[in-house]
Amino acid sequence: MRSVGKMVWTIADGYIPSQSTSLDRASVSHETACNRSAGPSEAHVGITVLSSDRNAIGPHHVGVPADRTLHVRFNDSSDRKPILRDTDYSSLFEPDVLVVIQHARLDSRKAELALLTTTAYGQD
Amino acid sequence: MRSVGKMVWTIADGYIPSQSTSLDRASVSHETACNRSAGPSEAHVGITVLSSDRNAIGPHHVGVPADRTLHVRFNDSSDRKPILRDTDYSSLFEPDVLVVIQHARLDSRKAELALLTTTAYGQD
Amino acid sequence: MRSVGKMVWTIADGYIPSQSTSLDRASVSHETACNRSAGPSEAHVGITVLSSDRNAIGPHHVGVPADRTLHVRFNDSSDRKPILRDTDYSSLFEPDVLVVIQHARLDSRKAELALLTTTAYGQD
Amino acid sequence: MRSVGKMVWTIADGYIPSQSTSLDRASVSHETACNRSAGPSEAHVGITVLSSDRNAIGPHHVGVPADRTLHVRFNDSSDRKPILRDTDYSSLFEPDVLVVIQHARLDSRKAELALLTTTAYGQD
Repeated sequence: MRSVGKMVWTIADGYIPSQSTSLDRASVSHETACNRSAGPSEAHVGITVLSSDRNAIGPHHVGVPADRTLHVRFNDSSDRKPILRDTDYSSLFEPDVLVVIQHARLDSRKAELALLTTTAYGQD
Repeated sequence: MRSVGKMVWTIADGYIPSQSTSLDRASVSHETACNRSAGPSEAHVGITVLSSDRNAIGPHHVGVPADRTLHVRFNDSSDRKPILRDTDYSSLFEPDVLVVIQHARLDSRKAELALLTTTAYGQD
Repeated sequence: MRSVGKMVWTIADGYIPSQSTSLDRASVSHETACNRSAGPSEAHVGITVLSSDRNAIGPHHVGVPADRTLHVRFNDSSDRKPILRDTDYSSLFEPDVLVVIQHARLDSRKAELALLTTTAYGQD
Repeated sequence: MRSVGKMVWTIADGYIPSQSTSLDRASVSHETACNRSAGPSEAHVGITVLSSDRNAIGPHHVGVPADRTLHVRFNDSSDRKPILRDTDYSSLFEPDVLVVIQHARLDSRKAELALLTTTAYGQD
């Protein structure tokens, strides 16, 4: 498969609501960065989180196996500091091989779901 | 008409909910890749589906007649293996002529509809 | 003001639902192509509509005065043939000066609103 | 951190509904332009607002500190003229260093929320 993508990506509009009318994993309010890797080798992606009033956090690293996709959930935190809810943030992705990043949010503050997505901003 | 587009496209964020409050074709939870062809000849587009934990599936091929549009529905499966519901996936499009790909999802897990769209990531 | 944009734009995913729970202009199900012109002269934009099973319609022309924006509504038809409801279509924009095209849809088939938008695909 | 972005950005589809079923800051109908700055110095961004029938307003200037993000809310007005509600507009961003702009809208005219977002159109 051809390797496609860019080496730097940014999602400018990050925001995770603190409230959810459903708490199951699929429906809780969440944001994801979908990370596609179709090259011959695993991609290692550094993710840095920027806020409006604090220092940047990261980079935190995730691995995407060759010919796989990974949907990273910003809600989850392992070795990195958690992202504050109800708070504006942005994110910067610096992989070691070409990847493609798409931003998505599910907002379940109300009984019905609201969704948004966009291809992130990528550059060489 | 001018031929416009790119030769490789990726939708990083694929996800089809298994649930729908309506089962008619227009309102069932679904995802489409909208494929525009405005060149002088039919476009043949290879579609490969990537998952997080299994090998890639495809390419499956669809044809788009000249000066027509085709809205491919990921829910449908003919000669390719069906895409699992409630499961992260990504897709790669490799046409033989220039096309434009736009990603859309309708989510009807709840009584009200949620929609999202984005121009996919394309490169030469 | 600087002139920004591209000379060809495509919206691959066109779809106007026939149903609306509200019929006032702001809330009826509709699609728009938002057309920004910030150059020194009026932009004339040719709009061609592609379908999945009929010949392309157009180009239909609209004018965007200098330093103004125009939100073209696909629901409206004047000298061009109306776009069928509940039917897949795509659109091609060919201005005579640089413009920027953004695609938006409001879906009011249900009591609550669903929205989507994306920057269209543009090329030089 | 690497500096990423473009020097000119446009959001073609601006629209702020006058109505909201909730008046708290997070849920009132609003539009934001998310402005990411990861360079070594503060970004100064000139924002010009275009309408369909009046002269352009601006540029209004905002500052984004180095390695911070700023989510500018079009609803707010300080030294610039307020943006009319229920009225089509577009916006042009002219920073003095590279930034990335993402457009977002929350529409709470109905009891449930509708969201949309897109990476804006950027050029060098």
